[in-house]
Amino acid sequence: MAVTGSRHRFRGARRTTTVTAVSSFHAIIPAGGAGTRLWPLSRRARPKFLLDLEGTGRTLIQQTWDRMLPLTGTERIHVVSGADHGSAIAAQLPELVNLLLEPSPRDSMPAIGLAAAIIERADPDAIVGSFAADHRIPDPDRFVEAVREAIAVAEEGYIVTIGIEPTEPSTAFGYIAAGDALDGFASARAVRSFVEKPDEDTARGYLASGDHVWNAGMFVARASVLLDSLARFQPELAAGLRAIAATWGTPAFVAELGRTWPTLTKIAIDHAVAEPVAAEGGMAVVPAPFGWDDLGDFASIAPLGSSPDVLWVDADGVARGREGVQIAVLGLRNVAVVQTDDAVLVLDLAQSQRVKDVVALLKDAGRDDLL
Amino acid sequence: MAVTGSRHRFRGARRTTTVTAVSSFHAIIPAGGAGTRLWPLSRRARPKFLLDLEGTGRTLIQQTWDRMLPLTGTERIHVVSGADHGSAIAAQLPELVNLLLEPSPRDSMPAIGLAAAIIERADPDAIVGSFAADHRIPDPDRFVEAVREAIAVAEEGYIVTIGIEPTEPSTAFGYIAAGDALDGFASARAVRSFVEKPDEDTARGYLASGDHVWNAGMFVARASVLLDSLARFQPELAAGLRAIAATWGTPAFVAELGRTWPTLTKIAIDHAVAEPVAAEGGMAVVPAPFGWDDLGDFASIAPLGSSPDVLWVDADGVARGREGVQIAVLGLRNVAVVQTDDAVLVLDLAQSQRVKDVVALLKDAGRDDLL
Repeated sequence: MAVTGSRHRFRGARRTTTVTAVSSFHAIIPAGGAGTRLWPLSRRARPKFLLDLEGTGRTLIQQTWDRMLPLTGTERIHVVSGADHGSAIAAQLPELVNLLLEPSPRDSMPAIGLAAAIIERADPDAIVGSFAADHRIPDPDRFVEAVREAIAVAEEGYIVTIGIEPTEPSTAFGYIAAGDALDGFASARAVRSFVEKPDEDTARGYLASGDHVWNAGMFVARASVLLDSLARFQPELAAGLRAIAATWGTPAFVAELGRTWPTLTKIAIDHAVAEPVAAEGGMAVVPAPFGWDDLGDFASIAPLGSSPDVLWVDADGVARGREGVQIAVLGLRNVAVVQTDDAVLVLDLAQSQRVKDVVALLKDAGRDDLL
Repeated sequence: MAVTGSRHRFRGARRTTTVTAVSSFHAIIPAGGAGTRLWPLSRRARPKFLLDLEGTGRTLIQQTWDRMLPLTGTERIHVVSGADHGSAIAAQLPELVNLLLEPSPRDSMPAIGLAAAIIERADPDAIVGSFAADHRIPDPDRFVEAVREAIAVAEEGYIVTIGIEPTEPSTAFGYIAAGDALDGFASARAVRSFVEKPDEDTARGYLASGDHVWNAGMFVARASVLLDSLARFQPELAAGLRAIAATWGTPAFVAELGRTWPTLTKIAIDHAVAEPVAAEGGMAVVPAPFGWDDLGDFASIAPLGSSPDVLWVDADGVARGREGVQIAVLGLRNVAVVQTDDAVLVLDLAQSQRVKDVVALLKDAGRDDLL
């Protein structure tokens, strides 16, 4: 990972819409997640972020790259992924400069934190933003606008999350309870708290309140603020990450990574930093009205449409098949039909979340070839 | 078609269970039918009778051959099929001697009648029996026993049908109303009438009566009786068939077949002969208790079981896939999932009869490659 930091401070970008890249801003793209609820499309060796689920010709990680590029240029995008996926990512993102491969998965805080620690060493005042590799955002312009505001808020020392204004009472996402507006910003508000996936009644209340946004796992902060916060709540983890980062670019890096990485606490950035910092009043949220989906299951990809050559006879749902294969569905409503070279999955879309159970059963049966 | 007739009269086989073949008995196997309700397993080029739906290693026409062999030997089995299927049939039945290929499909009476007319020329007293190529009979011994009785009854001048004793009030089959027992036979009865597929209440009444059996389309008669009967009800058709048969084995056959065949009335043997002869009192039925199915749709093949490697999670039904393909079904009851190289069909088994609509839509869409 070649870190190209800059001591140039970001100032007032929110008032200068002609600025294309924000010179102190680095995007960190953690590319992980088994995506077992999209089996058999997604596999261990072909996780969701490597798929073109919309048929646009760009995979999800490529779309993520495309979204970040106006804010960063190619030099300040950092992808963090498992060692297994290095070559596939490099093939999909030929312009990628900064690819950091984890020796083993340790959840999002170590992944994002290591990239942030490496960026911090080159430029402690750099702003970092982490954005999952496998989300869908149909309106990149509004996304960029929200990130620009988040960067400006992060300049003030906040850890900032971008919260998606809900369009329905979803029970599939966690929520962020927003508090008072922050002075001097178009949309930013304090974060009161992070709340887990609600039941349906609660979700309806959130939607009606106007004070709750979806937690899309997007975090923007000064690198030093992020790591200093982590040092207060998870001191060993922060120290480990900074120790590894200190060897970056030296011959000692591989050995230090190999020694220290396996000792790091497995923890999500939400629990490690976002929730405790929110409790202290140090989190801000930029509520954003752009369309967003984490494409977590077949129900969520159903609106994206089916493959060509699907015949529905008194039937509906979503069907994805191999090229040149005719899929026909007769007399079944709200189903998904998914075909790959080695598997066919048919399900009631209302049970989309349970596809992971199918994968678990295949694993139990020793069918590692299908995972 | 080499007809190997014999003037040796069959006598008393019903009292001689050690007899293996019945020397004057010829089996006619009409191998036709699009089988569109089993799409995509069955295709124009690969009709149902060429399929091994049970996974036994023997296709339906091979099983039909196996069932007839104890009664006929290889020399007196006659397969009548479309010209398209000649090579596939020859490949599946390497011992087949008598293969008659129709220039075009003209329903069952011309197909069976031409074979019968050719057999009649070699031996007017020969008994012929017609048995579809695509039915399933799990207990061939009981089948053979019923055919032996039908042959004996046919010797008396009757046209004899074998009727299947119903095990449920099926609305998928036509029925035969049986009348008085015939003297001197174990089971044979006069036929009162043939009745169309009933509604469910009527079917329940039939089942309760004990006087109705399923019409399995199995007809046994002396060749001359069959053709003489046809000559009374469809004189031109009988004359045409006998004219073609008269040229069998001569250089004139191909030209005569090409000239006369297209002029023959398209009609089923049921309407051409069985129903009018029944009305005259000349039809007999041998009610038989053997298991039988015409495997007409996916609901009927469901009890035969699924391919290996099917995973049902809160789901049931039948699934047939390509070898080495994992099928998984989640949260759907009573469904069929059928995969071939070029198609995947998923359906509610309760709507199995409507698979032909899917095929019709594909035809309308110009997808002849899939038919």
